Amino acid sequence: MALPQPIQNYRKQYRKIKLFQDISSVLHWDSEVMMPEEGREYRSSQIAAVAELTHEWMTDKSFLKQIQDAKHSIQELPEPERVLWNRELEILMEEKEKADKLPSEFVAEFAKLTNLAHAEWAEAKKEKNFKLFSNRLEELVNLSKKQADYFGYTTEPYDALLDHYEKDAKANQIQSLFSDLKKSLIPIVASAPKFENPFPKAISVEKQTKFCNRLPSILGLTSKESRLDTSNHPFSTSLGKGDKRITTRYSESDPLSSIFGVLHETGHSLYESGLSQMPDWPNPLTEYLSLGIHESQSRLWENQVGRSLPFWEFMYPILLNDFEISESELPFKRLYKYINSTEKTKIRVEADQVTYNLHIILRFEIERDLINGKIKVKDLPEIWNSKMKESFGLTIENDAEGVLQDIHWPMGAFGYFPTYTLGNIFGAQFFRKFKEEYPDSHNKFSAKGDFSDLLSWLRKNIHSKGKIVSIENLVLEATGEPANAKYLISYLEDKVKEVSILN
Amino acid sequence: MALPQPIQNYRKQYRKIKLFQDISSVLHWDSEVMMPEEGREYRSSQIAAVAELTHEWMTDKSFLKQIQDAKHSIQELPEPERVLWNRELEILMEEKEKADKLPSEFVAEFAKLTNLAHAEWAEAKKEKNFKLFSNRLEELVNLSKKQADYFGYTTEPYDALLDHYEKDAKANQIQSLFSDLKKSLIPIVASAPKFENPFPKAISVEKQTKFCNRLPSILGLTSKESRLDTSNHPFSTSLGKGDKRITTRYSESDPLSSIFGVLHETGHSLYESGLSQMPDWPNPLTEYLSLGIHESQSRLWENQVGRSLPFWEFMYPILLNDFEISESELPFKRLYKYINSTEKTKIRVEADQVTYNLHIILRFEIERDLINGKIKVKDLPEIWNSKMKESFGLTIENDAEGVLQDIHWPMGAFGYFPTYTLGNIFGAQFFRKFKEEYPDSHNKFSAKGDFSDLLSWLRKNIHSKGKIVSIENLVLEATGEPANAKYLISYLEDKVKEVSILN
Repeated sequence: MALPQPIQNYRKQYRKIKLFQDISSVLHWDSEVMMPEEGREYRSSQIAAVAELTHEWMTDKSFLKQIQDAKHSIQELPEPERVLWNRELEILMEEKEKADKLPSEFVAEFAKLTNLAHAEWAEAKKEKNFKLFSNRLEELVNLSKKQADYFGYTTEPYDALLDHYEKDAKANQIQSLFSDLKKSLIPIVASAPKFENPFPKAISVEKQTKFCNRLPSILGLTSKESRLDTSNHPFSTSLGKGDKRITTRYSESDPLSSIFGVLHETGHSLYESGLSQMPDWPNPLTEYLSLGIHESQSRLWENQVGRSLPFWEFMYPILLNDFEISESELPFKRLYKYINSTEKTKIRVEADQVTYNLHIILRFEIERDLINGKIKVKDLPEIWNSKMKESFGLTIENDAEGVLQDIHWPMGAFGYFPTYTLGNIFGAQFFRKFKEEYPDSHNKFSAKGDFSDLLSWLRKNIHSKGKIVSIENLVLEATGEPANAKYLISYLEDKVKEVSILN
Repeated sequence: MALPQPIQNYRKQYRKIKLFQDISSVLHWDSEVMMPEEGREYRSSQIAAVAELTHEWMTDKSFLKQIQDAKHSIQELPEPERVLWNRELEILMEEKEKADKLPSEFVAEFAKLTNLAHAEWAEAKKEKNFKLFSNRLEELVNLSKKQADYFGYTTEPYDALLDHYEKDAKANQIQSLFSDLKKSLIPIVASAPKFENPFPKAISVEKQTKFCNRLPSILGLTSKESRLDTSNHPFSTSLGKGDKRITTRYSESDPLSSIFGVLHETGHSLYESGLSQMPDWPNPLTEYLSLGIHESQSRLWENQVGRSLPFWEFMYPILLNDFEISESELPFKRLYKYINSTEKTKIRVEADQVTYNLHIILRFEIERDLINGKIKVKDLPEIWNSKMKESFGLTIENDAEGVLQDIHWPMGAFGYFPTYTLGNIFGAQFFRKFKEEYPDSHNKFSAKGDFSDLLSWLRKNIHSKGKIVSIENLVLEATGEPANAKYLISYLEDKVKEVSILN
C-alpha cells in the first residue's frame, strides 16, 4: 500500500539527515585511508560542521511536528502497517530525544576534538609516550562525562554511554556476565596450546592483497558494492547503498593479520549490505540494531567460519597459489593449528579468539572507573600495566603496546568495548543455531567455498530485522533462547580440544 | 588590524558555504577515483543535496543582509583595507547574484543529472555508441540553455555560460581570436615533424607510478599536501587547505600519457595550493580567478617546463633508472623528440601542444551552435566527424574516438573548452616574462631540478593575487602587456624549429 502522506513527509527529512550522516562517513573514511596529512585540520572542521548540521536538523522543532503528525495519522490504519510504523516512529523518537539532550555546540566540539585527537594519538603512539596524549584524553573524558550527564542515568554515568552503543545494557549486568565468562575462560586459556608461525618466508603485501581481495566476494560481498584498502587500524564503514568500505593492514611476516582483518570487516559490511536491502531503506528501522549485534556478524565470519576446518580446506590451495609457496613449505595442519593458536599477548587486535575477551574485560573495568570518576587519566598507564600483569602475566614495556594501543578512547568512544564480547557471545549462539538447521553446511563450505546458506540464514534472521525487534527478541527469535555465553564457551572448549589432538 | 565585526559575521557564513562546497569536492573525487560502481545513485543524491544546501545558504536573505552590513561598515575605514574589502564584497555579490538567479531545485536537478550522466556516458563510450547517451545529453543541453536564460545575456545564450568560466569573455571575441590563431597554427602544424614512440618495450604501471610520484614534489607540491591516484580521465581538485588531489592514467606502451597527465594536474594543484596560502583564506578573494588562468598554470608546467630541454636533462637519468632501461635502449634525443612530436590525431587529451588548440576550436564552434540552438544533439556525431575530416583530415571510426571522447558535455560544462586555449595563451605569455626576468633559470632546471624561481614567480604574480585583480589586469601587471597569442605562436614556432634540426 502507498505510504500515508505524513509518513512520507517525515521520512523526507529523515533521509536528508541520513544522507548527510553518510557524507560524514565518506569524510571519515577518506581521512583514515587517503587524505594527505596536512588536510587534517580543515577536514576536522568539515566533519564538525556536518555533525552540527545533522544535529540541528534532528533537533529541529518542525521535525518533531512532522513525527507527531505521522504518529497521529497512522493510529487508524490496520495492522500490520500500524504496528511497524509505530515501531519506526518510536525508534526515531528515542534517537531524537537523545539528540535533543545534546546542545549543537557540544556536538560540533565533540566531533572536532575527536578528529583532532586522532593525529595526536597516532603521534603519541609512535613516540610510545602516553604523556603526549594525556591532556587531550582528559578533555575527551571530561566531554564524555558531560555527555553522560546530558543523556542522564539511574545508577552510574557509564551506563549512559553504554546505552548509546548497546541499548538497555547496564554496567552491573555486564560486570556480572563478564565475571562468569572470565571464570570459564581461565581453564580454557590454561589448556589451550600455542603454535608457531608456520610461514616459511615473508609474504609480500602484493601477494597478500591478491588473496585478501578474494575474500569478501567468496563470503558474499561483491566488488561492485565494496572495496578493500589499507589503514593503520582495520575498520569497515557503510557509505550508503551499494558502497561498503573495508580496510585491513599487512604484516609480511604474519599474513593472518591482514586475512583475519578482512574476514572480520567483511562480516560487518555484509550486515550493512543486508540492512540496505530492507524495503523502504533508509528509515529508522533499517539501521543496525546495536554494536553487539554488529560485532556478532564480524566475529561469526572471522572466527566460527574463518578459523574453521571447512573454510581452510577450501582456501588452502588458493592461498598456496597466491602466496607462491608449496604444500611442503606450508603444510595444511601447521597452518590450521597456527590459525587456532592461543597465547597471552599484549595487543588486543592481534589476540586469538580464546584470550580476546580477557582484553575486553580489562578495558571495560578501566573505562567504567574512568567515566565514573574513580580513577584519573594520568594514572591510566600504571593501572593498565598492573592489570596486564595480573590477568596476562605480561610486562608492558611502553605505552604503545599498552594503554595507547586502541583507537576507541581517542575517538571518544567510551562504553564501546563491552560490545565486542557481547558480539562474541551472540555470534557463537547464532552460528550454533545455523549449524543445527543446516547440518550439512560444512561440506558446501569445504568443497565449493559456498557460504550462501549461512548468508541467507543471517539475512533472514538478523540482517532483514534491522531495528524492527529488540536485541533480546532478535536473539530469542533467531535461536529459540535468550542470549547466553554457554555457546561461546563450548565453541572455545571444542576448538581447543580439536587443535590439541591434531597432528 | 583586526577585522571589523560585520566582516567577521559575513565571513563566518561564507566559510560555512565554502566548507560544504569542498565537501562536495571530496564526494566527487571519491566517486571518480575510489567508489564501487553500485554506490553511484546514492552518491548522486548526496552531491545534489549538498549543492542544494550551499545554494540555499548562498541565496538566503540573511546572508544578503550580512553582506550589506559589512559593505556599510567599511565605508569609513582607511585605504588600503577599504579597497580590498570592497573588492571582496563586490566579488561575492557577483557570485551571489548569479546564484540568486538559479532556483534551488534547478541546482539540485543539475547536480544530480550530471552525476548520473557520468556513468551513462562512460557506458556509451565503452559501447562506442552515441545513441546510448543522446537522450541524456539532450536533457543536459536543455538544462544548460535554461541556465543561460536564468543568468541572462545580451548577444547569445552561449555568452552566459562562457562568462561562468571566464568572466566577461564573449563568444564573438573568442571566435575572432581563435580564427587568427587557427591561421597562424596551420603553417606550424604543416611544418612540424612527427617522431615515433622510442620506448623499447612496455613499461609497467608500477614503474611509471614510481616515476610519476616524484614529479609533484620536484615541481614544488609535497606529498604531505597532495596525493596521486588513477582515474579514467586525469583531473585535479582541491579538497581544502593542505589537501590537493591529482589523478592520471597509465598506458604501458606510452608512458608519456601518465607523465604529462601528472605535470598538467600538478600545475593546477600548485595554483590551488598558492591560493590557500593567501592571508585570511578562505574568503571570496582567495578563489581562483578564472578557468583560463587556472589552465595557464597547468599548461605552463606541462608544456613550457615539461617539454623543455632543461627539464628532461634533469629527469632523463631518473626515468631510465625508474623504468629500468638503458641509455642505448632509449637515447635522450629520441625521447626528447618524441615528447615534442606533432601529429594530427583524434583524441584531444592525447594531442600534442601544436595541434591541441585545433581540437579546442572545433569543440568551441560546435558547443556554441548547440547552446545557441543552431544544431541539434542528434546531429552531433555527423557534425563532429565532418569537422574532424575538414580540420584534421581524419576519418572518425566510432563515437568513442569522436564526439563521446570528452567528459565536459556529460558534466554539463558547456563554455568550458575555450578556457583551455586561453590557458595556453596566458601560460606562454607568463613563461616568456619569467624567462626574461630569470634568464639563467634553465641552468637551475637542468642541473638541479630546481624550479623554485619559477614557482616563486608564479606565487608572486599569479597565485597570491587570487581574485584581487581582474583577468585583464593580472596579465597586464604580470607581463607588462595585454593578453595576446603571439607568445604562444612564437613558442610553438621555436619549438618546431628546435626539434626539426635536432639529430
